[in-house]
Amino acid sequence: MKRLQGSKWVSNAMDGLLRELNFKDGLIPAVIADGDGQVLTLCYLDREAVQKTLETGKVHVFRRSHGRVMLKGETSGHVQELKEVRVDCEGNSLLMVVDQHVAACHHGYRTCFYRRYRPADDTLDECEKRVFDPSRVYG
Amino acid sequence: MKRLQGSKWVSNAMDGLLRELNFKDGLIPAVIADGDGQVLTLCYLDREAVQKTLETGKVHVFRRSHGRVMLKGETSGHVQELKEVRVDCEGNSLLMVVDQHVAACHHGYRTCFYRRYRPADDTLDECEKRVFDPSRVYG
Repeated sequence: MKRLQGSKWVSNAMDGLLRELNFKDGLIPAVIADGDGQVLTLCYLDREAVQKTLETGKVHVFRRSHGRVMLKGETSGHVQELKEVRVDCEGNSLLMVVDQHVAACHHGYRTCFYRRYRPADDTLDECEKRVFDPSRVYG
Repeated sequence: MKRLQGSKWVSNAMDGLLRELNFKDGLIPAVIADGDGQVLTLCYLDREAVQKTLETGKVHVFRRSHGRVMLKGETSGHVQELKEVRVDCEGNSLLMVVDQHVAACHHGYRTCFYRRYRPADDTLDECEKRVFDPSRVYG
């Protein structure tokens, strides 16, 4: 069942979820983690991205640089299949547990958090291995 | 070694880290996870909170509601001891791996993400056990 909200037709099916979420400037942050507990990335979703993620079972994000909702992995094919959605105590953020295809990071690492801070010399260390070559995937 | 930056004395010791971070409206989001891979919460830090976190080895956050930097667990004693800091590929967010004392959530759960979305009936389910009674801890 669909109804008009503003200028858009939206499904009633997620009203219960959407009511619990606080969008700030239209966006809510989502921690993306895999089932083994590795944190992969932090994304931002608008209402439409939340709806598309749940409707398709694949994470969609709002890319500010593109000004639109995009399937995560649209170019690379490295999609994230949704296993579980959790909401924090305040409704200010989401946790999405996913099956990650290949890798989450466009620099070729499984996780975007591939740099570890070394306080001893105040530098960032690459502490993960590259799993794909970005120049081959993105051309 | 300290030097004057704006109106504040700051340590040079973290310039390498701070240079890599993009603060938006003065804040950067940090995913807080424990060593077992459980995502506990999403916090926001300003520069001072990053510095205090690294100097003390305990997570400090900027609480917008209080308008100041606070030790996470200041009231409850449920502090988070820092084990590792990671920076995402764009410098837009942090991942802090911690030893969590008792619980991260002021509602009494180990994680703030204690509610799971059930698409079948469009509701949120409590899927974690309470580990402390908030009324006893916060009075």
